[in-house]
Amino acid sequence: MRNICMKVSYDGSRYNGFQSQPDGNTIQDHIEKAIRMLTGEELNIIGSGRTDAGVHAKAQMFNFLTASAIPIERWPLALNSRLPDDIVILDAVEVPESFHARRSAKRKTYRYTIDTGKFPDVFGRQYRYHHYRPLNVAAMREAIAHLIGTHDYTSFTSAHSTKKNHVRTIYEAYIEQDGPFLHIYVTGSGFLYNMVRIIVGTLIKVGIGAVAPGDMPAILEARDRSKAGPTAIAQGLMLWDVYYSELDAGLSDQSQG
Amino acid sequence: MRNICMKVSYDGSRYNGFQSQPDGNTIQDHIEKAIRMLTGEELNIIGSGRTDAGVHAKAQMFNFLTASAIPIERWPLALNSRLPDDIVILDAVEVPESFHARRSAKRKTYRYTIDTGKFPDVFGRQYRYHHYRPLNVAAMREAIAHLIGTHDYTSFTSAHSTKKNHVRTIYEAYIEQDGPFLHIYVTGSGFLYNMVRIIVGTLIKVGIGAVAPGDMPAILEARDRSKAGPTAIAQGLMLWDVYYSELDAGLSDQSQG
Repeated sequence: MRNICMKVSYDGSRYNGFQSQPDGNTIQDHIEKAIRMLTGEELNIIGSGRTDAGVHAKAQMFNFLTASAIPIERWPLALNSRLPDDIVILDAVEVPESFHARRSAKRKTYRYTIDTGKFPDVFGRQYRYHHYRPLNVAAMREAIAHLIGTHDYTSFTSAHSTKKNHVRTIYEAYIEQDGPFLHIYVTGSGFLYNMVRIIVGTLIKVGIGAVAPGDMPAILEARDRSKAGPTAIAQGLMLWDVYYSELDAGLSDQSQG
Repeated sequence: MRNICMKVSYDGSRYNGFQSQPDGNTIQDHIEKAIRMLTGEELNIIGSGRTDAGVHAKAQMFNFLTASAIPIERWPLALNSRLPDDIVILDAVEVPESFHARRSAKRKTYRYTIDTGKFPDVFGRQYRYHHYRPLNVAAMREAIAHLIGTHDYTSFTSAHSTKKNHVRTIYEAYIEQDGPFLHIYVTGSGFLYNMVRIIVGTLIKVGIGAVAPGDMPAILEARDRSKAGPTAIAQGLMLWDVYYSELDAGLSDQSQG
């Protein structure tokens, strides 16, 4: 059996998230169906993680085992021609048997985009949250810096989190301003349920002056969901990239293409 | 009666173009309905020109006469709350009685975007034409330069054009490269039916080597639609801006917002 790892980009607007679930219509369902049409195999792909309903991915990674002899470079086009046009396979590589898209992942980056324009920019509006009141970006930048490091992020995860351990590491977190758009990038070892969206909801409270940047350490230490801000809407969130050690994945920089 | 001029942005994907027509579902229909909901007036707006089904606008202009006393700065938000979210009013100004969005327009810019990536970029795919084979951009730039000036553009308009006079002026035409995206900007005194899309279809033939850049003058001189390339698909086209002399419109630079 060959172990194949793929990079997929999708517009999550129409889907019930990445991972298969009883209601169907997930990215995983569509990819597995396309593979079945191509090779006849009934198989399950392993994603690097879930993305919720309405969340997008510039680069989600998944792997699967196949008996197919189709040359590796032919897979992306073969699957794309069998996928809806809001799901696009960008790259495929053969990886060692030990590679597992979720367990082998070293870090992930998410990006959340806020449109602070007086009126929403109509082009790509489904990838942004429109917040028409002014935001204090300097205060938001001060606040986000407090989240970097290894912390218990219980305050920043859904009360429905099923994970026992809420300690994670955020390596990098910053805000990029591009005209009316604020892009919030967060890179971490792993993310709890709704974690980025709650971080963003809290940053917005900082941006409107309802929370002080200096309150962030106390919010973290409280380990209490009710101390953080609301969960920002899904459509502004995008899984930006997933990183593996070269040894595991053999993914080249060209795969960024 | 007050004469009001507005700037509107729209994602044309779901609509039958700007101008009202028997099948309905046009941008004009939706705007007139929103005005009716707001003021109770049954009126017709005058657009700067048509855009075809599936064509977008970053900035389309229109004007109308109203008896309403609603302060000018309240109009955009009041209409946006009554419009679908893919149509957004960006600005409103009061203009002299003589102002007419079509007749007063001095020049217009259109932008056409080609995605030359191996696989289409999924985000904003509905605003681009995906052409996955390599294009010779240098040759396309040489070709487009031949179209600048005052010419009879009969070769570059639909055979169904109802205009008697096909002489127009192109002031500026150039190609901007942004990663895999080619943005083709064309600014002119006015445009014939399908003119920009036929220019783009011809430039693509140049880009793949099927037409030489030096053939462009002969294609113009032929005044024969069959000498030019095919009509590029509507979804890559965007009305980028419409220009009026300051005297007529009183539109400030802030209206670019």
